[in-house]
Amino acid sequence: MEGAILVPAPSSPLSSTSLPSVTLTQDELKKIAAYKAVEYVESGMVLGLGTGSTAKHAVDRIGDLLRQGKLHNIVGIPTSRKTHEQAVSVGIPLADLDSHPVIDLAIDGADEVDPHLNLVKGRGGSLLREKMVEGACRKFVVIVDESKLVKHLGGSGLAMPVEIVPFCWKFTARRLQNLFEDSGCVAKLRTSSGANGEPYVTDNGNYIVDLYFKEDIGDLKAASDVILQLAGVVEHGMFLDMATTVIVAGEMGITVKNK
Amino acid sequence: MEGAILVPAPSSPLSSTSLPSVTLTQDELKKIAAYKAVEYVESGMVLGLGTGSTAKHAVDRIGDLLRQGKLHNIVGIPTSRKTHEQAVSVGIPLADLDSHPVIDLAIDGADEVDPHLNLVKGRGGSLLREKMVEGACRKFVVIVDESKLVKHLGGSGLAMPVEIVPFCWKFTARRLQNLFEDSGCVAKLRTSSGANGEPYVTDNGNYIVDLYFKEDIGDLKAASDVILQLAGVVEHGMFLDMATTVIVAGEMGITVKNK
Repeated sequence: MEGAILVPAPSSPLSSTSLPSVTLTQDELKKIAAYKAVEYVESGMVLGLGTGSTAKHAVDRIGDLLRQGKLHNIVGIPTSRKTHEQAVSVGIPLADLDSHPVIDLAIDGADEVDPHLNLVKGRGGSLLREKMVEGACRKFVVIVDESKLVKHLGGSGLAMPVEIVPFCWKFTARRLQNLFEDSGCVAKLRTSSGANGEPYVTDNGNYIVDLYFKEDIGDLKAASDVILQLAGVVEHGMFLDMATTVIVAGEMGITVKNK
Repeated sequence: MEGAILVPAPSSPLSSTSLPSVTLTQDELKKIAAYKAVEYVESGMVLGLGTGSTAKHAVDRIGDLLRQGKLHNIVGIPTSRKTHEQAVSVGIPLADLDSHPVIDLAIDGADEVDPHLNLVKGRGGSLLREKMVEGACRKFVVIVDESKLVKHLGGSGLAMPVEIVPFCWKFTARRLQNLFEDSGCVAKLRTSSGANGEPYVTDNGNYIVDLYFKEDIGDLKAASDVILQLAGVVEHGMFLDMATTVIVAGEMGITVKNK
């Protein structure tokens, strides 16, 4: 069942700051979506904790509610080393998938959301752990500002990341680009933000190749399978049929889309 | 086209040592198959060099022929650090997939071969690099002694290896076992041969989970896809529809099977 509920901004947790005449920044929109998602959290839950600028607000909010005594008995499963550190700093007790193979609810951002609630994730570099955690969830709530909505995945013109082993990465990058030649695909190795253009290295010791598409890649399930079938590919950033709810914060308020 | 040619042992490169009354050891059979495979090598070729006790004989033989001047202008692409070292020691010039994305011929052993020339490989731990190299070959010649022939993959009762990321490996191992519950699958983390039972670590810094099946797993392509779809899996040891020739050395001689 898919439906969209338009909730006017005044009913959001940040209603006092979202007067109609005020233009909200992208970060404020992210915060509004994150706080709305945390309303789904109940005491006693095992929670998947996402990574990135939007998910960060949710983790902070969960920490606040624990400190205020409004939530208790929460166990968090972080999706990156960075989120692990943040969660520790705000006082969320943590565990991992080995000890908690079923997660009640995960909250995370996304880089793109299509009309079927398929996602591109991983521009932050944590796609593999995110996919492991969020694939083990009963409910997966995605939080985005409205700039992340696309007609089809890849449609933003920004990267669709693929995590690959470092061994002969040029060979694998070339094969990935060739797979989507018809969509005008360009594959680029992600480099770290520091000097020297060294390859960006994931938490798992791998590299990331970012794919850019000029045209719609069509059947996403088929695209997923051919990518995974390439030896040298560890995981890709398309999260298909995984999100159960997407919360979109925009200038006009919050939209909640359910699968 | 599939065909089998029974070549009597006396025509093999080791014919002088394979008298009918002599019982050959398994290692001698491996050597016979390896030497036969090297007959496919021509000067000027880019060669994929396999890993393991059978492939080792082929690498040695190529080194011999280079030294004797019977082969020249060969470039080897090793499938593991171990083979890299061996190839250097016997004087084979080396390169990698980045500079040579198309390989003329690869020669490697296998742990199991089914009647359709599908393989299980990777008990030696090098399945990922082997699959990358052998997936880039025009011809892939597999060399085995007759003990490796099975009716169906997994049929030897020995391991079908899966390379996984170390992050939450227990979780991934459990999911792999659950995938093949109906085939009586048992998943075991591979440990290094040294003391302490530390996990075995691949050349790519990953772990290996060995799957053992009590029953036939059925559709191999479907099995491959569900394994690769698990986040946390890097690659598996089923090499489907990749071998173009299988050379089997047995007490009665050499059998050559072509795809």
